[in-house]
Amino acid sequence: MRRGFDTDEYKARLTRAQTAMAEAGLGALLLTTEPEVRYFTGFLTRFWESPSRPWYLVVPASGDPIAVIPSIGAALMGQTWISDIRTWAAPNPTDDGVTLLADTLRQIGGPVGVPSGAETVLRMPLADFDRMKTLAEVGFCGDAGIVAALRAVKSEAEIAKIRHICGISGRAFARVPEIAGGGVPLSRVFRDFQRLLLEEGADWVPYLAGGAGPFGYEDVISPARDAPLRAGDMLMLDTGAVWDGYFCDFDRNFAIGPVNDACVEAHERLLEAANAGLKAAQPGALACDVFAAMAALVGAGETAGRLGHGLGMQLTEGLSLTKHDQTILRPGMVITLEPGLELRPGQWLVHEENIVIREGGAESLSDWAQKLPQV
Amino acid sequence: MRRGFDTDEYKARLTRAQTAMAEAGLGALLLTTEPEVRYFTGFLTRFWESPSRPWYLVVPASGDPIAVIPSIGAALMGQTWISDIRTWAAPNPTDDGVTLLADTLRQIGGPVGVPSGAETVLRMPLADFDRMKTLAEVGFCGDAGIVAALRAVKSEAEIAKIRHICGISGRAFARVPEIAGGGVPLSRVFRDFQRLLLEEGADWVPYLAGGAGPFGYEDVISPARDAPLRAGDMLMLDTGAVWDGYFCDFDRNFAIGPVNDACVEAHERLLEAANAGLKAAQPGALACDVFAAMAALVGAGETAGRLGHGLGMQLTEGLSLTKHDQTILRPGMVITLEPGLELRPGQWLVHEENIVIREGGAESLSDWAQKLPQV
Repeated sequence: MRRGFDTDEYKARLTRAQTAMAEAGLGALLLTTEPEVRYFTGFLTRFWESPSRPWYLVVPASGDPIAVIPSIGAALMGQTWISDIRTWAAPNPTDDGVTLLADTLRQIGGPVGVPSGAETVLRMPLADFDRMKTLAEVGFCGDAGIVAALRAVKSEAEIAKIRHICGISGRAFARVPEIAGGGVPLSRVFRDFQRLLLEEGADWVPYLAGGAGPFGYEDVISPARDAPLRAGDMLMLDTGAVWDGYFCDFDRNFAIGPVNDACVEAHERLLEAANAGLKAAQPGALACDVFAAMAALVGAGETAGRLGHGLGMQLTEGLSLTKHDQTILRPGMVITLEPGLELRPGQWLVHEENIVIREGGAESLSDWAQKLPQV
Repeated sequence: MRRGFDTDEYKARLTRAQTAMAEAGLGALLLTTEPEVRYFTGFLTRFWESPSRPWYLVVPASGDPIAVIPSIGAALMGQTWISDIRTWAAPNPTDDGVTLLADTLRQIGGPVGVPSGAETVLRMPLADFDRMKTLAEVGFCGDAGIVAALRAVKSEAEIAKIRHICGISGRAFARVPEIAGGGVPLSRVFRDFQRLLLEEGADWVPYLAGGAGPFGYEDVISPARDAPLRAGDMLMLDTGAVWDGYFCDFDRNFAIGPVNDACVEAHERLLEAANAGLKAAQPGALACDVFAAMAALVGAGETAGRLGHGLGMQLTEGLSLTKHDQTILRPGMVITLEPGLELRPGQWLVHEENIVIREGGAESLSDWAQKLPQV
């Protein structure tokens, strides 16, 4: 499968952004985070793991984006379709790109929209932001949710990448019997499952969660403990793997030997709930409708706070399947369905699939789970 | 090796923070990022990969920290030494913890210091921050660099964890001949090297960079390409692995068969430079002194912008080895030495080691490289 996108993909994203910016009366967008910068440029690197350097992309009301970045990134940015690349030698404690960014924004003109709604972060030091705003001599405001709305609807090329990493994870899940069983420490299962994901073709594994216990797991965000799996445990693994910058996010449950009937029945109910979510995820339906279809079978999943979410360049992004979320589902949106059931107080089973909204109804990307596998 | 820290470790961190807060006249600290929250609590999870939920920790001028977090994290936070845990059902589009956080800060009292200097980020939506500041009815300011200064000096327990992950990576580097050689695509080497790191005991691999070419590599932040290694290439792998929440960050170079003399000589000079850095890294020396000792042998490393940096709970943190950085080295600081040489225009060799500053002089953590290995 080919990496990257054609330049046309980025130009189409830019055109959609500039159309929305014109409607919102914005002179520019200022973007600072990895997915936002990558969305408009294709700049893909794990170097964002280092917090030392800020990176900026300015999307003007007309014309191509301008990268304002540390010089260490110039070679890589030069391989993207971006031609206006302005660099400084970072880190510089007295002026870490502040003047260069302010000059650029003053030249482009405001008002400058900065993503500031739910799920967004300004990835630059607050003190630098304040100083830059003064120097730029333009107005600043929110981005009217433009970037999040654009990113929520995926192109076919994006969907293909998500399907590809879902396939990789599916093959790794099929190999879990190689690595899990009674007596194996959960921490080793986690380590080995990451290895399987890499062997099956994942570029890297930014996220792996899971748990194990006879009536499910206490939470789904804890790191793995060294305690061994025991016969009768339910084991859950939830990934978080990436191919060419796109995530999958689904899980699978495994019975460690025979498990109690409550687990088997609960697992079947979770599959039913996911199927109900799949059916409800029609174009034009609301996020809360999909939530309601699943909650009718399994309840509201109070600890997790939601029964699924958007997915793409980040592990989670965009809408939440909650009773509050009124987002309208559109073809091309990729979401997770993640129903959960509390079997005992504080002991949960969770199941998760990935789907894409299509004109004729949603389509599975994650090779839908069937019966509970026993290892 | 035991995971976690004794509660005394966290109490000592808190005491040091509160002493500095008293000097700076702060009523509280507001922390929002993964390492900042973990530093005071021990809350360790990969769930931060999801941008959907903000997490807050309030460090008062006296008394224990207060966690203000999504309910999905309550069980895990409940396993730390923190007892005052206030939760809300996130995500909530109308009030995502804003009121709960504002109430907490109003109760504790200000002024509230928010990390806002170099390398810091406020990990919450800007719009929520503005609304919260109004609701809290206390003053806000920077944190006077308190948190960064505390984190820069590691305890023996922290140093032991960094040494442990350095050892894991050292064993993985020793196995590179198993996975690299002429004809092997660089992307497969990257995938397999992550697998080796996991097999040797890394919990996860948040960062892997590298490159290959007959006179070095174009940059050190690009993802791996599918092009195969060729005889005569210099291969470099730079990790980025984690054990119990602490990073190593060092690299190793490998000759793919016989390489040209310029590469062999450059590699030797890089080792000399690292040794010069090691000798210069005495307590009381400045970061710029260590830079100067290495730059005298290899030049200023202009593209990378620095010749090393602090290391610990993040891949990079704290000081930078540049001519500008006046940070005084203190016993317990863990840093990288990362000299680079440009062999041809745009073609670099880089070498990196990890050290800890000690009273009697710096000590290597990364099993110092010797001759250039050939695979």
